[in-house]
Amino acid sequence: MTEEYDLIVTNGVCVTASDVATLDVGVKDEKIVLLAPSGSLAQAKTKKLIDAEGGYVMPGGIDCHVHLEEPSMFGEGSSADSYETGTRSAIAGGNTTIVSFAPQQKHLDSVLGALEATHQLARDNCYCDYGFHLLVSNPSPLALSEFAQLANTEGVTSLKIYMTYTALQLRDNEILSVLLTARQNHILTMIHAENGDVLEWLSDQLEKQKLFAPKYHSNSRPPILESEATNRAIALAGLIRDTPILLVHVSDPAAAERISLARQKGQPVYAETCPQYLFLTRDDLDKPGFEGAKCVCSPPPRNAEDQGQIWTGLKNGTFSVLSSDHCPFRFDDAEKGKKTCVTEEHPVGRFRYIPNGLPGIETRLPLAFSAKKLSLTKFVEVSSTNAAKLYGLYPRKGSLMPGADADLCIWYPDGKLNEFGLTNDMLHHDVDYTPYAGRRMRNWPRYTIIRGKVVWNRDHGGVVGEKGYGRFVKRAASCLDDMWKTVDEEGSFDLESL
Amino acid sequence: MTEEYDLIVTNGVCVTASDVATLDVGVKDEKIVLLAPSGSLAQAKTKKLIDAEGGYVMPGGIDCHVHLEEPSMFGEGSSADSYETGTRSAIAGGNTTIVSFAPQQKHLDSVLGALEATHQLARDNCYCDYGFHLLVSNPSPLALSEFAQLANTEGVTSLKIYMTYTALQLRDNEILSVLLTARQNHILTMIHAENGDVLEWLSDQLEKQKLFAPKYHSNSRPPILESEATNRAIALAGLIRDTPILLVHVSDPAAAERISLARQKGQPVYAETCPQYLFLTRDDLDKPGFEGAKCVCSPPPRNAEDQGQIWTGLKNGTFSVLSSDHCPFRFDDAEKGKKTCVTEEHPVGRFRYIPNGLPGIETRLPLAFSAKKLSLTKFVEVSSTNAAKLYGLYPRKGSLMPGADADLCIWYPDGKLNEFGLTNDMLHHDVDYTPYAGRRMRNWPRYTIIRGKVVWNRDHGGVVGEKGYGRFVKRAASCLDDMWKTVDEEGSFDLESL
Amino acid sequence: MTEEYDLIVTNGVCVTASDVATLDVGVKDEKIVLLAPSGSLAQAKTKKLIDAEGGYVMPGGIDCHVHLEEPSMFGEGSSADSYETGTRSAIAGGNTTIVSFAPQQKHLDSVLGALEATHQLARDNCYCDYGFHLLVSNPSPLALSEFAQLANTEGVTSLKIYMTYTALQLRDNEILSVLLTARQNHILTMIHAENGDVLEWLSDQLEKQKLFAPKYHSNSRPPILESEATNRAIALAGLIRDTPILLVHVSDPAAAERISLARQKGQPVYAETCPQYLFLTRDDLDKPGFEGAKCVCSPPPRNAEDQGQIWTGLKNGTFSVLSSDHCPFRFDDAEKGKKTCVTEEHPVGRFRYIPNGLPGIETRLPLAFSAKKLSLTKFVEVSSTNAAKLYGLYPRKGSLMPGADADLCIWYPDGKLNEFGLTNDMLHHDVDYTPYAGRRMRNWPRYTIIRGKVVWNRDHGGVVGEKGYGRFVKRAASCLDDMWKTVDEEGSFDLESL
Amino acid sequence: MTEEYDLIVTNGVCVTASDVATLDVGVKDEKIVLLAPSGSLAQAKTKKLIDAEGGYVMPGGIDCHVHLEEPSMFGEGSSADSYETGTRSAIAGGNTTIVSFAPQQKHLDSVLGALEATHQLARDNCYCDYGFHLLVSNPSPLALSEFAQLANTEGVTSLKIYMTYTALQLRDNEILSVLLTARQNHILTMIHAENGDVLEWLSDQLEKQKLFAPKYHSNSRPPILESEATNRAIALAGLIRDTPILLVHVSDPAAAERISLARQKGQPVYAETCPQYLFLTRDDLDKPGFEGAKCVCSPPPRNAEDQGQIWTGLKNGTFSVLSSDHCPFRFDDAEKGKKTCVTEEHPVGRFRYIPNGLPGIETRLPLAFSAKKLSLTKFVEVSSTNAAKLYGLYPRKGSLMPGADADLCIWYPDGKLNEFGLTNDMLHHDVDYTPYAGRRMRNWPRYTIIRGKVVWNRDHGGVVGEKGYGRFVKRAASCLDDMWKTVDEEGSFDLESL
Repeated sequence: MTEEYDLIVTNGVCVTASDVATLDVGVKDEKIVLLAPSGSLAQAKTKKLIDAEGGYVMPGGIDCHVHLEEPSMFGEGSSADSYETGTRSAIAGGNTTIVSFAPQQKHLDSVLGALEATHQLARDNCYCDYGFHLLVSNPSPLALSEFAQLANTEGVTSLKIYMTYTALQLRDNEILSVLLTARQNHILTMIHAENGDVLEWLSDQLEKQKLFAPKYHSNSRPPILESEATNRAIALAGLIRDTPILLVHVSDPAAAERISLARQKGQPVYAETCPQYLFLTRDDLDKPGFEGAKCVCSPPPRNAEDQGQIWTGLKNGTFSVLSSDHCPFRFDDAEKGKKTCVTEEHPVGRFRYIPNGLPGIETRLPLAFSAKKLSLTKFVEVSSTNAAKLYGLYPRKGSLMPGADADLCIWYPDGKLNEFGLTNDMLHHDVDYTPYAGRRMRNWPRYTIIRGKVVWNRDHGGVVGEKGYGRFVKRAASCLDDMWKTVDEEGSFDLESL
Repeated sequence: MTEEYDLIVTNGVCVTASDVATLDVGVKDEKIVLLAPSGSLAQAKTKKLIDAEGGYVMPGGIDCHVHLEEPSMFGEGSSADSYETGTRSAIAGGNTTIVSFAPQQKHLDSVLGALEATHQLARDNCYCDYGFHLLVSNPSPLALSEFAQLANTEGVTSLKIYMTYTALQLRDNEILSVLLTARQNHILTMIHAENGDVLEWLSDQLEKQKLFAPKYHSNSRPPILESEATNRAIALAGLIRDTPILLVHVSDPAAAERISLARQKGQPVYAETCPQYLFLTRDDLDKPGFEGAKCVCSPPPRNAEDQGQIWTGLKNGTFSVLSSDHCPFRFDDAEKGKKTCVTEEHPVGRFRYIPNGLPGIETRLPLAFSAKKLSLTKFVEVSSTNAAKLYGLYPRKGSLMPGADADLCIWYPDGKLNEFGLTNDMLHHDVDYTPYAGRRMRNWPRYTIIRGKVVWNRDHGGVVGEKGYGRFVKRAASCLDDMWKTVDEEGSFDLESL
Repeated sequence: MTEEYDLIVTNGVCVTASDVATLDVGVKDEKIVLLAPSGSLAQAKTKKLIDAEGGYVMPGGIDCHVHLEEPSMFGEGSSADSYETGTRSAIAGGNTTIVSFAPQQKHLDSVLGALEATHQLARDNCYCDYGFHLLVSNPSPLALSEFAQLANTEGVTSLKIYMTYTALQLRDNEILSVLLTARQNHILTMIHAENGDVLEWLSDQLEKQKLFAPKYHSNSRPPILESEATNRAIALAGLIRDTPILLVHVSDPAAAERISLARQKGQPVYAETCPQYLFLTRDDLDKPGFEGAKCVCSPPPRNAEDQGQIWTGLKNGTFSVLSSDHCPFRFDDAEKGKKTCVTEEHPVGRFRYIPNGLPGIETRLPLAFSAKKLSLTKFVEVSSTNAAKLYGLYPRKGSLMPGADADLCIWYPDGKLNEFGLTNDMLHHDVDYTPYAGRRMRNWPRYTIIRGKVVWNRDHGGVVGEKGYGRFVKRAASCLDDMWKTVDEEGSFDLESL
Repeated sequence: MTEEYDLIVTNGVCVTASDVATLDVGVKDEKIVLLAPSGSLAQAKTKKLIDAEGGYVMPGGIDCHVHLEEPSMFGEGSSADSYETGTRSAIAGGNTTIVSFAPQQKHLDSVLGALEATHQLARDNCYCDYGFHLLVSNPSPLALSEFAQLANTEGVTSLKIYMTYTALQLRDNEILSVLLTARQNHILTMIHAENGDVLEWLSDQLEKQKLFAPKYHSNSRPPILESEATNRAIALAGLIRDTPILLVHVSDPAAAERISLARQKGQPVYAETCPQYLFLTRDDLDKPGFEGAKCVCSPPPRNAEDQGQIWTGLKNGTFSVLSSDHCPFRFDDAEKGKKTCVTEEHPVGRFRYIPNGLPGIETRLPLAFSAKKLSLTKFVEVSSTNAAKLYGLYPRKGSLMPGADADLCIWYPDGKLNEFGLTNDMLHHDVDYTPYAGRRMRNWPRYTIIRGKVVWNRDHGGVVGEKGYGRFVKRAASCLDDMWKTVDEEGSFDLESL
């Protein structure tokens, strides 16, 4: 047994993806080393003691859908948050690990350069641990040949592709090439499923009719774009012998239903949703003036009834993870391009050129926790543990079991924190607004702890971690549901079987 | 009342899409003018009397999916049958009207030239009446602007687009432009729904693995290509306020199920199937040597269970029409390219270069009739009356009611004709094989009558009609199910409603 | 050719289930004998000439869901209309044939007595032709053994069973016995599908809470009662090797969807809907005072969105027939029990004891025709021809083809009749109200003709037919879709195959 | 920290429903008190040390579908195992808690007597901890009024009802009464969903045709009986404002699909399956002689393809629990009735009188574990943790977290135990056969530990626990998915809302 702990968290209610128990947690050398009856470690020797006061102690939030310093597809500049500000915001919102994107440029054949460039952006700049997905925009033969190195050497075991956005959109044959190679290398493929061709057509039509206001962003991307593309993605993945895929940021209940049906038949189709589909609606894009622009993201928020069904999908397992899709652009920033997107010709803005994406890395956990719609274990499952498993971070991350990294998010006890209204000032991102301003919050992470070190202490000092403390994490293949074991048993893709 | 008839058909069992009755039919001036009790016209004054001897008298077959003299997409040459040989074959198989395609060349902006060129091919060459669908491969602004003329002046109220074949495939945004303009002009859009990108990818993969034999044509086009594209087509058509579409040559039960679901919800989605999906199976492509090439068409024939479900779809109304998709290529024709498709490099042929398409205009009705799986009224409905309504030929065509063109197909009485085995020699197309050679037939059209004139008399003279007798028919908008009335009541496409 | 006609209808637009044509109709010896070009018979020798003035000439309406003089299940008395008044009302609404019910009494083993008793009620009393369905409430071994006689000798080829109403409800095992025996004898089984046990429970609960008002009739029979029972009926019929069934008076879109799915898979499941589900809604039961009672029927009318989907089902073939389910009770009739249903204890009435059922035999055709939502051919199909085929009256009834009975319904030309508001005074039933009072009507049958005789002439004399003119029609087995041919090919029910 | 442990399990791989970690487990006073790094407790002071040698350490199996000493519905006698022999068999199969049934007799109004009688059977006789479900066969007003006492005082928070078996079957109205009262008292309703009326009818038909052999048990209960009843149960539960239900022993993929659809829409429908639907097939009932009788249970085993889909349902969350439905009858026991079921009249047996049910309490975990088809966490989830949560035993049972009862099942390390063939001699039930005789097993529970005490040590002593050690556990309301919190938020059943 340990002589002296580095940290003891006492008196908390520990929550895992399956269990809730009142326990003390002992930490040593960055790891959790002990779970013991509540109060039993109160007298143990330790460098630091946190009295969790009946609050919930959870594995730290893991946010695996984060865009940092990515080139904008909507003109000049890039997304607002750097690795420094983005991860700072992350820890202030209870997160201990993020996975962001290394974007391949379309004109380059290789993907390795994108990886190295992203390493340079992140290195020594992060407040929390981090990994990378590759964002593949050009699945050249060279790029495909590099997948093995990505998975085996670089610790990059997931990639993302787009069915929309001219700059990124892959055609169905390209998607198949990616899926086949990803399958061979046990790489998980994340898919942004909206039909880009239809989007372009609708945008053209709207512009022709001079419908430029932010709210028309919704009309340019009706739900059918999403459910159609989702159906297509599932068909393509099924064709290559049930290749595992993850549909990201699902907003449309019909898409969710399609996913659920595939899962019901045993196809390894996973799905993610995001707070914007639980807390915003289409009406938010119709706020007066440019205010609607603040809520422009893709897919767009849907209506209230849809929200209810997305919550249902989180509860019943249709969605395995709840991520932020943090991809902020400044509302009013002359240099980098701005969401107001006003030009002389379009004094009321122009939806087509409003950068798509919202800040949300810091609000993801507090919003979802305050809503009190998920059971505690389900909350941990979708916001941390499943993310760790899905992206090969588990069991090092996403777990409270001894042996895991001591990455914790500790909440206030119920009722300890008075309900308050959110303001952008409270947040730590480098963005000049939050779409959730004014929301009533009932709780907030009190402590964020990464590898045993307190990096966020809301009551005393706020961000107390340091830039550069966060480390790159090489990820293994996904272990959710023994995904790859099942795939391997099924055998390799065989043209004769079609 | 008429003094003297041009033709009287006596003693037959008349069948319409809804009724069966033993009646005499009186014809005058190319029109049906009288339906009267059986035998009551036996003594009437007439130029010609046909004793139908207890055989079935039906509206002549209408085959609205026919390719004649179209440029091959698989190398040089063109499809085997000319307007002369194709329509000759048509009448020998009980057809009185066909609608074939006027193919726009991809590099041309206008569609009107294609129409005129096709008129030149057909004029004075046809044995039966005919109309044209436009085949749109380049929906340029000019082409779209010509749709009004097509429908209002040229009598061309339907068009066809492809979701496959590199030379013809439209992207989804192009499809939307076509659908929107077609909707505005009450033009019916026929869609070949297979995912072309996936097809190309699979073909590449098969070739890489040196899987060249004809049977791999099936592997290059598994059913998921069809059901995916069908789902997409329905989504696109639904987006433009329930624009009517017709899915052509449906072979896959999953696609049929998707169509049925759309119809159940009230979306005007129509569908066609073809004899190759009722009488051939995938195994036919795996015959020894090059023989499999004879059955290469797209989509490919499926398996026996699928066949059963396609029959069910014909019976229960999922399919509105049974067409031939007559698109023959000669099996062995050095000049025009041939289905054997052998080169020095590929001595066993190469599926990718086997021209897709089968002869079938002459066998469509006899095969379906001999199968005895459809009720008599359903047989007339799907092989004649619905085609007439769907393509705006009704009530001039597809009807036995007085006032309609006297276009008839008269069958032998049951048991009068001994069952026989089909040979290609019996057929009148310009093709060197039939995929149905050897089939046991139980009946065959005894007479084909167009506008009161016998053009096919199986027992005496065979083809007795004359080249050039057939006339071009200007077609009105589709009247099936009051299709356009319903669409018009729904109102025009409105971007605000999305 | 005929020397002299008994009747000629000239200048009309003839409509069949598949065709529309401007034609003259010649009638002789109760039969249609000639269809000829419009005006061509204007000079022919005839006893009677009707100038149909551009109005529609259709096969007479066939209403196969009619309750006449049936014992009430809600206390004393019986349904309001006798065979005399019911058939009088029928012809005034454009009907030429009805099929009503011969109700077996639950305590009797035999069904033949019910048949004879019903013959006595009808004989010499009817204004139109008529047939009987057997209503089976006690499927005793004796009753089952009599099915062969019913079908082969008595001309009764359909029966009805109930899954609800204590007095009539069969258990699932009894339903199976009926289905098996009906299948063996080519008898079509009509099923009232609502879950009676649930209904009783809900009624008890409502009464416990003193919720007695007419509107609670709806709460006692929510749609789930209907969709559940429909699913069960389809399961039971499918178990006995796809025994054909007809779900009567379908009101719930979820039930319709279930039916559509069964049809899509090829199971011979047919369905009927009624005007009350197209023209009334649940809100009609919530009218002030006792007025709501006027609309109490089972299933109850649903909401406006449901109405739209029921219309869709009529258009797309989910429903094969539109019948009236005429089952009237007088609103205020002290002797026979009344719909107001007031007692001293329940001064506001009591939904549970309001007799279920509406008058509708006379308004069925005018309401549906005036709505102009169905194409002309579809209107004829669902209101006449399909009924004739489904119930074995075809080709004698339901057809305009020479050889058929000259049963016609002739409408006014469009615009000839000014729109008017319906009142109960205009109707010819023996009921003191119509639930459709005040409806705006745009057309009404101008002539009803049965076997060549005008029995209803709206402009001159109204009901001009005579009591006793109507004849009992022995019916053959159903011929819709070659239903029994398909069943016979499938083979008999085999326990080994389960 | 603890001075001295009662038990330390060292070197094992601990598995919870969400986590896998190599840990030592410390036990004191019947509870788990510590989870610490592997090997760290090797030197701690303890009364007993188990070296788990790289084997898996899991929460003990919880089997919540167990029939012990229940009266047979198939003649005299009762199910074979007593509380003594049943729980002895349970621990030898890795179980630490069971929940069995307290069967109400149909002729009694109260349910409390059944509870007391069952207590008497169990008290001082059990080797493992135990609870009771109430089996309700007569939902009299008195019985319903006792539900509150059951849940609040007696610790009985679940009940079971039957839609089949004449002696037990409830009608739909009775089911609604049970569901409503159960909902009000936070009692979970388990439903045996097979249509009893259809079963009786089919059995009658089979007997009429002298089809008596055991294999006809399958024909008497085809899958449609199950999917129909499942649909009905879901409809009934949905009617009472989404009352939570558990469908027990689901065998039919169509039923599973129906359940999945309800869950997808957010209805709290839970489901269980059993090893007989994963390891037996219909062919097992067709073994020569009486051998088929050994596999007679209800629903009957299905075919191999169905098995695959049931496995899929376990993996994807359609099934929350895997239980045994242990309900054994002796194969050859003259006194108590026997499965061979031979009489003079029926020398080959008679399926209808073969008692339904199999022994399985001891083989449930080893069979499922040896199959290696579930991930480790999923295995724990469905065989222990979810059962604990579903039935209100959690967090005392089903958990490895400190504070939980030290109920463990420890397996051999992979490869340590040679594969062996199962024989009935190896088992500890009071049954003369196992349907799994001859199966190849790859693992078996090495230790079963209840509240810190080893009760099964396969290598040394076998059953080393003592009769009477097992205690009755009062259960709280189900906590799975915050089930009742969600229901309460929905509000109480309101007739006005129907």
